[in-house]
Amino acid sequence: MDNNSLADRVLEGDVRATARLIRLIDDGDRAARPELAKLYKHAGRAHIVGFTGSPGVGKSTLVDKITTKFREHGQKVGILAVDPTSPFSGGAILGDRIRMQKHFVDEGVFIRSMATRGKFGGLTGSTSDAAVVLDAMGKDIIILETVGVGQDEVDVAHSAHTTVLVTIPGMGDDIQAIKAGLMEIGDLFVVNKADREGTAKTVRELKFMIHMSSERYQASGWVPPVMETMALEERGIDELYTAIMDHRAHLMNNAPDEWRSRERRRLRNQVLDQLRDGVMERIIEKIGGFEALDDLIDQIIDKKKDPYGVNMELLQNIFGGNSL
Amino acid sequence: MDNNSLADRVLEGDVRATARLIRLIDDGDRAARPELAKLYKHAGRAHIVGFTGSPGVGKSTLVDKITTKFREHGQKVGILAVDPTSPFSGGAILGDRIRMQKHFVDEGVFIRSMATRGKFGGLTGSTSDAAVVLDAMGKDIIILETVGVGQDEVDVAHSAHTTVLVTIPGMGDDIQAIKAGLMEIGDLFVVNKADREGTAKTVRELKFMIHMSSERYQASGWVPPVMETMALEERGIDELYTAIMDHRAHLMNNAPDEWRSRERRRLRNQVLDQLRDGVMERIIEKIGGFEALDDLIDQIIDKKKDPYGVNMELLQNIFGGNSL
Repeated sequence: MDNNSLADRVLEGDVRATARLIRLIDDGDRAARPELAKLYKHAGRAHIVGFTGSPGVGKSTLVDKITTKFREHGQKVGILAVDPTSPFSGGAILGDRIRMQKHFVDEGVFIRSMATRGKFGGLTGSTSDAAVVLDAMGKDIIILETVGVGQDEVDVAHSAHTTVLVTIPGMGDDIQAIKAGLMEIGDLFVVNKADREGTAKTVRELKFMIHMSSERYQASGWVPPVMETMALEERGIDELYTAIMDHRAHLMNNAPDEWRSRERRRLRNQVLDQLRDGVMERIIEKIGGFEALDDLIDQIIDKKKDPYGVNMELLQNIFGGNSL
Repeated sequence: MDNNSLADRVLEGDVRATARLIRLIDDGDRAARPELAKLYKHAGRAHIVGFTGSPGVGKSTLVDKITTKFREHGQKVGILAVDPTSPFSGGAILGDRIRMQKHFVDEGVFIRSMATRGKFGGLTGSTSDAAVVLDAMGKDIIILETVGVGQDEVDVAHSAHTTVLVTIPGMGDDIQAIKAGLMEIGDLFVVNKADREGTAKTVRELKFMIHMSSERYQASGWVPPVMETMALEERGIDELYTAIMDHRAHLMNNAPDEWRSRERRRLRNQVLDQLRDGVMERIIEKIGGFEALDDLIDQIIDKKKDPYGVNMELLQNIFGGNSL
C-alpha cells in the first residue's frame, strides 16, 4: 500500500481525497477500483438510510432537518443525492440550496450528488461504492436520497439498511405506486406536509396496507411505523430520528438474519451491477469501440441485419458456440 | 419457416399469438428470439409515441383519449404501459380501469403492460422487442406509457419517434426535473389539467426553457410546442393529435438525418440492453448459477473477499488476463 494513495487519505478523513475518489467512481473510472478494494475492509460500520419518494414530497427538506438531528447527536453524516430535483444535487431552486449551506460548511457532513449513471447503467453500483468510501472515511450515517419512481432509484433505496418512504397527503397516485411495488421496501413511512388536508386519510391508507401485509412483518419482527412530519416547520423530526435509530437497533440486535439478507441483497446488486459494467466495457473494446457498434446499428437500420442476429453474433464472439 | 410459428401468426394479426410472444419477451424467455428475428424485417412502419411524466399528471387519461382519436382516424393502436400507476398496467383504481374497457374490446387496439424488468435490467430491450411485435402485427401507432422519472423509464420514452412530456400546473419540482435532464427528450410538452391555477405560469416556464435551448432546436428544425389539455374533459386532444402527426411528418419529410439518428439511438439502446441481458445470463450459468453467486456474496459479507476482488475474478474467468 503506497503511502499517498487516495484510499490512505480517505482513511485519514481527507475530504478532498474523498471527493476525488467519489468523482472517479461517478465517472466510472477504473482507477477507483484498487482504492475501493483497499477501503472495503475498513467499511461496514456506517448505517445507510435511504430516503425515497416522488418529486415534490419534500425529501430534501426532510434530509436537511434529519441531518441536523444526527449532528446534534454527534453523528457524522454522508449524503449521496441521486435525485435530479434535490437541492443537494444542484437541481432545486436557489432558496432550497441556500438552506442547505449550513451543512456544506459543517466538516461533520459530506454531501455529494451522483450522476444519473454512465454508459451501461450502474447507478446502484456506483452509489454503493460511494457509500463504501464515506463509510471507510468515518461517517456514522450515510443518507441516500433518490426519486422513488424508477426501478434504478428503487434499487438504490433498496440497498439501504433503513428505507424511508416519503409521501404527502392527497397523492393518490403515489399511494398507487407504493401499492404497486414500493410498499415492500419501506421500513418507515413518512407523510410529510402533514398540515395539509387529507393527512388522516393518507395515514389510514398506509396503515391499512401495512396491516394487509402483516404476515410478512410478523416474520421480520418489525412493523413499519407511519409517521407525520412537517419538515419545513421541523415537526416530527425527533420522532423520525428515534424511529430510524429504533430500526437500526432492531436490525442489529433482534434480527441478525434480516440484516444478513439485506447485506446479501445489497451486495448482490452491487456485484452484478459492476460486473455488468465491466463486461460491457470489455465487449465494446473487443468489437472495436462504439464506432464499430454504430456500423452494426447502421446495418440494422438498412435492414441488412437484425438486432437479434447481431446480438447472437456478439455473444458467439465472446462465449463461442451456439448462443441463441 | 414452420407454418404455425408464433411469428407467422403475429404477421396474420393473431391477437393471442401476439399476446403470447409479448409475454415470452416480458419473461425474458429465449424462445422469443427466433420469432423476433423473423418479425424484424416486417417492422419499421409504425410510429412510436412515448408518453412520460410523474405519477398524477394524468398520462393514462391522455393516452386513453388520444387512442380514441387515433381510432377515429382509422389508425390501429398498440399500447405498452410500463408505469406501475397506469390503469393500463393494472395499477390504478377501479374507475380508471373501467374507463379503459372500451379499448380492451376494440380489436384495433392492443394493450399490454410490461413488467418493471427482469433479473438483469432490460426494460428498454423488452419494450423495444414488444414494439417490434406490435409493428409487425400491423399497428400504425405504438404508444409507450412510462413514469418519467427513473433513468430506465426515460430511456424507454427516449426510444420513441415522438416523445410527449406531460406535466400539470404548479408542479414546480416537476419543472425542475425537466430542467435537470428530461427537457432534451421532449418533442411535445403537454400541460394537463389546464383548468388549474398556475397553468399560464407553467406554460410560460416551459416556453422559456425551450427558448433557452433554441439553438439546438433550430438545428433540427422542430421547436417543441407547449400544449394545454384537460384530458378528462377531452379538451386539447385534437390539437395534441395534430401535433403528433405534424412531428411525424416533420421527421419523415424534413429531417431524414434526425430520423436516422433517432433510429440509431433507439437500436443502440436495444442492442446493448439485450446484449447485457444475454451476457449476464451466460455469466451466471458459467459460475454455477445464483447459488454460487450467493456463496461469493456470503464470503464478502464475512470479509473473506471484497466486491472488487470478486468482480475481477469473474471478469478474468470470462475474458482471461488481468482485467482489473
